[in-house]
Amino acid sequence: TNSTPAGFEIRRIESRDFAGVTTALSGLTTVGDLSQSQFDDILAYWDTQLLPGRTDGARSYNTSVIIESATGRVAAVGTVFVEKKLIHAGGLVGHIEDIAVNPDFRGKQLGKVLINHLSALGASLGCYKVILDCDEKNVGFYEKCGYSRAGVEMQVRM
Amino acid sequence: TNSTPAGFEIRRIESRDFAGVTTALSGLTTVGDLSQSQFDDILAYWDTQLLPGRTDGARSYNTSVIIESATGRVAAVGTVFVEKKLIHAGGLVGHIEDIAVNPDFRGKQLGKVLINHLSALGASLGCYKVILDCDEKNVGFYEKCGYSRAGVEMQVRM
Ligand SMILES: CC(=O)N[C@@H]1[C@@H](O)[C@H](O)[C@@H](COP(=O)(O)O)O[C@@H]1O
Ligand SMILES: CC(=O)N[C@@H]1[C@@H](O)[C@H](O)[C@@H](COP(=O)(O)O)O[C@@H]1O
Repeated sequence: TNSTPAGFEIRRIESRDFAGVTTALSGLTTVGDLSQSQFDDILAYWDTQLLPGRTDGARSYNTSVIIESATGRVAAVGTVFVEKKLIHAGGLVGHIEDIAVNPDFRGKQLGKVLINHLSALGASLGCYKVILDCDEKNVGFYEKCGYSRAGVEMQVRM
Repeated sequence: TNSTPAGFEIRRIESRDFAGVTTALSGLTTVGDLSQSQFDDILAYWDTQLLPGRTDGARSYNTSVIIESATGRVAAVGTVFVEKKLIHAGGLVGHIEDIAVNPDFRGKQLGKVLINHLSALGASLGCYKVILDCDEKNVGFYEKCGYSRAGVEMQVRM
């Protein structure tokens, strides 16, 4: 595992990350018309979604940002979203989602730092596995983060 | 889309489905030591997890069972679990999970009926896409249900 590089910090997403997060995510896919107030509503919703039977306030939605300390700019963003299952004796699965690194901050291994952070977060929340879906071209990157191929992602779009 | 065959019905999972659901799921993977009371606790938790900003009581966890009407036996079980995102203007994604058909009920196309039901449920909840992860050997089945390949599933196990 890599530690956070000097000059950067990792924390839970906050309201003031709106511009930096939407910019980073627009490098991954369509962000569309998302206002600051819709962004705030989603963060507030995420805060309410707690994991079952815990007294530590552990949440289902865990979105982390890597921040450049000197400027407060968002260098990277990603989520581990936790699902409560019946299988594995009521096990938890972490889904890593919506990983994006701002192009201005490439080449600093921040993607790897973020994935390691989210994987460790999933483990600390009690997940028996953490999974993600990616393009074939990103398989090598995720292998370097300790992931291995598990199956085929299928989709239907509405 | 297929309609439910004569003699079967589809409904949300209930407490009395414990034995049938755990039997069906044990054909998919490890169920482990799950008691009736743990099962009930998970169903109760699932019921509390609502989608944001809706007045129709729409839920994140949607687990459906196909029941043989005459006997009440569980023929199949599956879930569409809905995730609230920032991307796609605060879009929703449905994750199809934990699909299992009881071996006594194979050859009746119940798997296809279940997937069509869960995909339609995801659409009706407002998802912009529904995704799932499967083994290479099940790709043909999901293609018959209208799905196409979207990416590679990667995992790390704790
Ligand atoms: C590991 C990772 O970041 N995977 C992302 C996924 O989380 C994201 O939701 C999707 C968006 O694509 P879409 O805009 O086509 O739904 O792309 C990738 O699969
Ligand atoms: C479409 C479908 O049903 N996919 C299932 C997934 O939902 C389930 O959670 C997993 C369990 O495998 P595991 O026991 O190795 O976690 O198997 C398959 O990927």
